Amino acid sequence: MAGSTFGTIFKITTWGESHGKGIGAVVDGCPAGLALCEADIQEYLDRRRPGQNRYTTARAESDAVEILSGVFEGKTTGTPISLLVRNEDQRSRDYGNLAELYRPGHADHPYDVKYGFRDYRGGGRSSGRETIGRVAAGAVAMRLLHELGITVRAYVSAIGPVSIDRSRLNFSYIEKSPVGMPDEEASARAVTYLEECMRAQDSCGGAVECIAEHVPAGLGEPVFEKLDANLAKAVMSIGAVKAVEIGDGTLVSGYRGSENNDCYTAGEDGVPYKRTNHSGGILGGISDGSPILVRASFKPTPSIAQPQSMLGRDGKCHEETIRGRHDPIVVARAAVVVEAMTAVTLADHLLLAASSRVENLKRLYGPAQ
Amino acid sequence: MAGSTFGTIFKITTWGESHGKGIGAVVDGCPAGLALCEADIQEYLDRRRPGQNRYTTARAESDAVEILSGVFEGKTTGTPISLLVRNEDQRSRDYGNLAELYRPGHADHPYDVKYGFRDYRGGGRSSGRETIGRVAAGAVAMRLLHELGITVRAYVSAIGPVSIDRSRLNFSYIEKSPVGMPDEEASARAVTYLEECMRAQDSCGGAVECIAEHVPAGLGEPVFEKLDANLAKAVMSIGAVKAVEIGDGTLVSGYRGSENNDCYTAGEDGVPYKRTNHSGGILGGISDGSPILVRASFKPTPSIAQPQSMLGRDGKCHEETIRGRHDPIVVARAAVVVEAMTAVTLADHLLLAASSRVENLKRLYGPAQ
Amino acid sequence: MAGSTFGTIFKITTWGESHGKGIGAVVDGCPAGLALCEADIQEYLDRRRPGQNRYTTARAESDAVEILSGVFEGKTTGTPISLLVRNEDQRSRDYGNLAELYRPGHADHPYDVKYGFRDYRGGGRSSGRETIGRVAAGAVAMRLLHELGITVRAYVSAIGPVSIDRSRLNFSYIEKSPVGMPDEEASARAVTYLEECMRAQDSCGGAVECIAEHVPAGLGEPVFEKLDANLAKAVMSIGAVKAVEIGDGTLVSGYRGSENNDCYTAGEDGVPYKRTNHSGGILGGISDGSPILVRASFKPTPSIAQPQSMLGRDGKCHEETIRGRHDPIVVARAAVVVEAMTAVTLADHLLLAASSRVENLKRLYGPAQ
Amino acid sequence: MAGSTFGTIFKITTWGESHGKGIGAVVDGCPAGLALCEADIQEYLDRRRPGQNRYTTARAESDAVEILSGVFEGKTTGTPISLLVRNEDQRSRDYGNLAELYRPGHADHPYDVKYGFRDYRGGGRSSGRETIGRVAAGAVAMRLLHELGITVRAYVSAIGPVSIDRSRLNFSYIEKSPVGMPDEEASARAVTYLEECMRAQDSCGGAVECIAEHVPAGLGEPVFEKLDANLAKAVMSIGAVKAVEIGDGTLVSGYRGSENNDCYTAGEDGVPYKRTNHSGGILGGISDGSPILVRASFKPTPSIAQPQSMLGRDGKCHEETIRGRHDPIVVARAAVVVEAMTAVTLADHLLLAASSRVENLKRLYGPAQ
Repeated sequence: MAGSTFGTIFKITTWGESHGKGIGAVVDGCPAGLALCEADIQEYLDRRRPGQNRYTTARAESDAVEILSGVFEGKTTGTPISLLVRNEDQRSRDYGNLAELYRPGHADHPYDVKYGFRDYRGGGRSSGRETIGRVAAGAVAMRLLHELGITVRAYVSAIGPVSIDRSRLNFSYIEKSPVGMPDEEASARAVTYLEECMRAQDSCGGAVECIAEHVPAGLGEPVFEKLDANLAKAVMSIGAVKAVEIGDGTLVSGYRGSENNDCYTAGEDGVPYKRTNHSGGILGGISDGSPILVRASFKPTPSIAQPQSMLGRDGKCHEETIRGRHDPIVVARAAVVVEAMTAVTLADHLLLAASSRVENLKRLYGPAQ
Repeated sequence: MAGSTFGTIFKITTWGESHGKGIGAVVDGCPAGLALCEADIQEYLDRRRPGQNRYTTARAESDAVEILSGVFEGKTTGTPISLLVRNEDQRSRDYGNLAELYRPGHADHPYDVKYGFRDYRGGGRSSGRETIGRVAAGAVAMRLLHELGITVRAYVSAIGPVSIDRSRLNFSYIEKSPVGMPDEEASARAVTYLEECMRAQDSCGGAVECIAEHVPAGLGEPVFEKLDANLAKAVMSIGAVKAVEIGDGTLVSGYRGSENNDCYTAGEDGVPYKRTNHSGGILGGISDGSPILVRASFKPTPSIAQPQSMLGRDGKCHEETIRGRHDPIVVARAAVVVEAMTAVTLADHLLLAASSRVENLKRLYGPAQ
Repeated sequence: MAGSTFGTIFKITTWGESHGKGIGAVVDGCPAGLALCEADIQEYLDRRRPGQNRYTTARAESDAVEILSGVFEGKTTGTPISLLVRNEDQRSRDYGNLAELYRPGHADHPYDVKYGFRDYRGGGRSSGRETIGRVAAGAVAMRLLHELGITVRAYVSAIGPVSIDRSRLNFSYIEKSPVGMPDEEASARAVTYLEECMRAQDSCGGAVECIAEHVPAGLGEPVFEKLDANLAKAVMSIGAVKAVEIGDGTLVSGYRGSENNDCYTAGEDGVPYKRTNHSGGILGGISDGSPILVRASFKPTPSIAQPQSMLGRDGKCHEETIRGRHDPIVVARAAVVVEAMTAVTLADHLLLAASSRVENLKRLYGPAQ
Repeated sequence: MAGSTFGTIFKITTWGESHGKGIGAVVDGCPAGLALCEADIQEYLDRRRPGQNRYTTARAESDAVEILSGVFEGKTTGTPISLLVRNEDQRSRDYGNLAELYRPGHADHPYDVKYGFRDYRGGGRSSGRETIGRVAAGAVAMRLLHELGITVRAYVSAIGPVSIDRSRLNFSYIEKSPVGMPDEEASARAVTYLEECMRAQDSCGGAVECIAEHVPAGLGEPVFEKLDANLAKAVMSIGAVKAVEIGDGTLVSGYRGSENNDCYTAGEDGVPYKRTNHSGGILGGISDGSPILVRASFKPTPSIAQPQSMLGRDGKCHEETIRGRHDPIVVARAAVVVEAMTAVTLADHLLLAASSRVENLKRLYGPAQ
C-alpha cells in the first residue's frame, strides 16, 4: 500500500530509487506566501551529499534540485511543490552474484518476500539515496519554521563508544568536525575509532541528536497524534534507526519522580522558569514551550568488506564478501535527515494546532455578530 | 484537530476522560467473520485495572466492557465495533487548590495553553484512564492476530535500576510477580526498591518489553509507514513513554557492523536460520519473519507526595503537595497497553500488506482470462 | 476496511446497526471552547425521528442522545465528543423467510458477498437508522458554524413528479408542510401524489436541497479536496442518494458560457455583486462567498408491499412480499441528514483552510522578529 | 492544506501548473509485479491532448510522459511511480490587463482570496492542464484493472441540448466522432450546434458517461467510503463538473419503488439475472457485480470571446474581453479524465476490499493451526 506520504495537512510524498532516473518529493499543503528558491533547498541537500570527506562514499553526484511547481514569483502558491533531483550515476555497478543473495542487515530479503523481486542495484528504494526526498522536503518545512522564528539543529552525538560531553558543546565546531560532532575532543576520539574500524574492514553505529527551539507551546494532538508520537514515527522511519528518545529518553526508567519532574522556580525577575528539561519540551504529547530534544540511535552500515554468511534466493547459505566502498558510519550524513524529519513533523503540527480553539477560528473568519 | 484515531484500514478511535461518563473505543475495519465476545476484551481490561495489588491505585472500578455494535451472532460483521466502559467513580475528589496549579510532570500546563481550560478532575483526557480505550481496541486486534497464529506478549523488563536478566526469563512467572516481571530474582529486587521509593514518598520509572511471534515476513510499507515507524508512534503515544527501541535499540550505536548484522547459518537440517536477532525482526521497515521486539521506557509517575514548586494559572510559583494515592510505578499496568498498541499496529499492517502484489489480488478476485 | 470515519481534522466516526444496542458518533477535532449541550443535538435528532407523521414509519423510539465525553462545564474541551443513542426497539421483527432472501433495491446482496453474512434484522448497518450518527455529529458541526455566523438549511424540493416553484419559496412553511416542502402549493400536490402511491402499495423518490449562507470565501483544497468534491462525497454517502448537484447541476450541460458565467455588476452603491449564482457558490472547488447550493436525488424506498421477484441465498429466484410498514418516501426525514453532512463538510473545511497562508500562521503564532 | 492526494492505499498525488515547468503525478501503493511502460500511459495522455481537432485549443504540446521511478525490468516494484510531463509552452501569453481582473466562471477570485495572489498565467493550478496528472495516474490504475479483467470506458453523452440515444449506442464510433460521441446521428447534430455556438463567440456545456464492467461485487466501504461516494468525490473534483449521477441519477426522484427496484428473474438457464440496472451497479454503496455507471455534467468553458463584466483586484467592475483561443466545449477532452478518476477510485477500492473477511487473510497469510 501507499507508504511514501507523511503528514496530515503539511504533507510530503517522496519517490525514487538508488539507480532509477531520480529522486524527488512533493510537498503539499505548504502555506502560500512563503519565500522559497532552489538555493534554500540545495543548502540542505549539500549537507547530506556523499563524497564530502573520507568517511562517506565516493559516489560523485551533484544532487542538484529543481523546483518544478508550486512557486510563483519567488513565493509559494499554496499548491504542491514538486522537487526533482536527477540521479547522475545510474549505472548499476558490477554486483556479481549479489543479485541472487540477500545482504545481511539490509532490506533485501524482506523486500523480496513482500514484493516478489530483488532489486540488486544498490538497494532500490531501501537505499540511503531515498533520504534525498526527505531532506528536500525538510528544507521547505525549515523555511516555514524559520519564518515563524523556530530553529531546528541536529548533530552527531555518538560514534561507537565515543559520546559528546554536554559540558563541552560547541555548535560552531560541527562543520569543522569531520564527523559532525559539536565537541572537538570527542570528534578527535571518534575519528581515531573510526579509522580503526575501517582498518578492520568494519563499520560502526552512532547517534544523532536534534534540538528544536522557540517552538510554541500547544503543538501535538492527543492521544495518537501527539507531537512525540509523530516525531518517533518520523525519525524511526529513517533507515538504520533502531531507537528514538525524547528528552532524557531511556534514562527515565532509572529515575525517581522527584528527579524527573521539571519543577518551576521563580527567576530573579520573579518570572517562573523550568530549571530542568528532562521531558525534552513535551508533556502529555504537547509542546510546552521548552526546547524539544529528539535522539536517534543508528545501527552500523551493514555493508562491510568481510566475508559473511548470507541467505540466497535459492534458499541456501552462501559465504560471500560485498565489494565496493561504503560509508563506515551512517550518522555523519544522517544528521540532516533527522533535522529534516523533525522539521516536517513540526510544520505539520503547527498547521494542525492552528484550529484547536474556537477563538482562533473567530480571529481568522470573524465571529457571528 | 482530530488526534484520537489510529490506523489506516484497521482503525481505532478512542474517547473519554478520567471523570467523564465513560471511556470507549470504536474499532473500524476489523474483517468480518471473527469470533468475538465481551469476555475476550474483559480479559485484557482486567489486566490493566487498578486496585490489583499494593503498587497500583485504590480506585475501585470494575471497568466492565459492553460491545454496542459490530458483532452479530457471535462474529464480527465488518462494520464498526463500539466498545463502552462506564466510569463508576465520577466524583471529582477534593483537588483543593490544584485546580489553579499545573502539576509538575503532568500535561496540565500544555493542555491549558492549547485548549484554554484546566480540567482539574484527575487530568481529563491526559489521565491514565484514557488507556482503557487502547486496551479494549487492542483486545480485538489480538483476537484477529491469534486467528492468524500470531502471539504478542509484553512484560516489565526494568524498574528503576533493576533489570531482568535474559538468561533467567520465565514467562510463566509474570502473573505471579507483583510487578509483572518474568524473572523471579529481579522481581524480588524490584519490590524491595519500590518499597524504598514509596517510603521516601517518591515514585520510579521502568521499562516494558513486547515480543510478537509468528508474524509473517513482508509487513510494513516503506518509506514512512514502515512497521517499526508505526510501532514507534503507537508506543510513544502512550502517556509517560519517553523512548522506543526496536531489537537491540540504543545499543546498536555502540556496535560494529560485524556484530550487528544478523547472518544466516545452515541448521542441522540444512535450512538456513538467523543466529541472532539484533534487528528485532524488522529490516528496512519490513518484518523478516523473526520475533519482533519493541521496548518502551516509562518515566516515573509524576504525582508524588512531596512538596514541589509548581507553576500556577496566575503565572506565579507555588510550593504545594499533591494529595491522594498514586501508583508508584506506571509500568506494572502499562505492559498490557504496550501489548495492545503493538497488536493494533500489527493488525493494520496485516491488512495493508494484503495488497502488496498483483498476484495476491488475482488470487482474491480472479485474473483476466 | 475502516469506512465509518469522515473528515480530516474535524473528523466524525459513526457506528451502530438498526437492531444492535445503539447508534453513536465520535466527533473528534471540534475546537475547544464551544458551548454545547445535549439539547443542541436532540433538536436535530428529533427532526429525523420516525413516527412524526403518517408518511414515516411507526417505530416509536425516543432517540435520546447522551454526551459521554468531550464537554466540561458546558464547553467543548477539544477532545473527542462521544454521542450515544440507545436503540429501544431491538426486537427483531418476524422477518419470515426474508432471512434467506435479498430484498430488491436493498444492500442485502452486496453485504453478503462482501462480508459473508446476512443481517436480516432490518438491514443492520445499511439501515436508515445509521443516519442517527450523522445527524448527531452534524449537530455539533452546526453549533460551530453558527458560532461563526454560518447557516445551513435543507428542505424537500421534489417528491415524485412534484417540484417546488422557486418563485413561491417560503421557508417558514417547511415545518407546517407534512412533507417538509417550503412551498404550500407544491406540498399539497405532493401529499396527493404520495397518498396515491400508498394506495397503490408503492413508494416514490424525491429530492432535497440544501443552502449554506455566510460561508467565507476561500474554503476548499484543490485539486482533490475541493469543497464541492467533499460535499459530493458527503451527500452521496447517504443511503438512497443517486445524484449530487452543485448550483445549477445537471442543467449546466445545456447552457452556453454566456448564460452560465456569473458576471459581476456594480450595485447602486458602486459595490460589485454577482447577479446570478449558477455556480452554487463554488468556483474551482473553492467557496466564493455566495450561498452554497447542494441538491440530492433520492431513490424511492425499496421496501414496498407488492410481490417482487427476489434473489435468494440459495441462488434461485423467489416471488415474495416484504411485510411491515415502511416510509413511502425517504426525503421527508432525509433533509436533516443532508443538512448534517453539509455542516460536517463545511466545519472540516473551515479548519483546513485556517492554515492556507503564512500570514494566518504568523497571526496565530507570532512572526520571527 | 494538502489537497492534491487522492486514495487510501492506491494513492495518487498530482502537482503542476499550466505555466510552470511541468505537470506530474506520483502513484503510490500500486501492487508489485504489474507490467507497465511509458506507452501504456502515453496512450491515455494522447487522448486528452489539445490540438486534436478544431474543437480543442491550438496549444501544441507533445505531453510526453517519463516514468522516473517505481518500475524495474518492465514491472512495478510496489514503490512510488513518479510520472513527469514537461510543459513545453511555458511562455505566458500576453494577458494584458487580465492580470488584474478575475475572469467570470474561473477560479481566479477564490484563489486570490484563499492564497493571496493572482496567477494570471492561464489559471495556474486551476487550469485544465492539471488533469494531465490525473490521466497519467489513471493510466496506471487502468493497467491494474485490465490485469483483473475490469474495463472502464467514458464517452460524451451530451453537448448542449443534443444527447445520445441509447438505442443507437455504437462504441466503435467514438473515435470517429469529432466530439467523442458513440452515436453518429447525435454527433452530427452536436457538431452543427457547436459550430453555431462558435460563430456566436460562445461556448457550451455537455455530459460524460462512464461505464465500468466486470467489477467484482463487494467493493465499497460503508458508510462514508462507499464506492459511489468516492466516485462522486473523484468526478466532482474535476474542474467544470457540477453534477455527478450514479445509474439513473436524478431521474430516480421521479420514480416509484416498483419501477426503480432492479428485480431478479430466472434466465432460460435458470440462473437469476437483474433485468434492469437502475442502480448503476451499486447498492448500499457496494458494487453488486453489474456494470457501474457514472455520469458527469460539465459547465460550458467559461472563457468566451464576448465582452463580460468582471470583478477586478481593485474591487471595481470592468467590461472586458478575454483574448486567445479556447475550447468551445470541455467534454471532448474530459472523457478520458472521467475515465481516469473512475479507474483510480476502483483500483483503491479493489485493494481496500481485499481485507474485508478473515478468510481472505487466512488465504493470504495462512491460518493458525
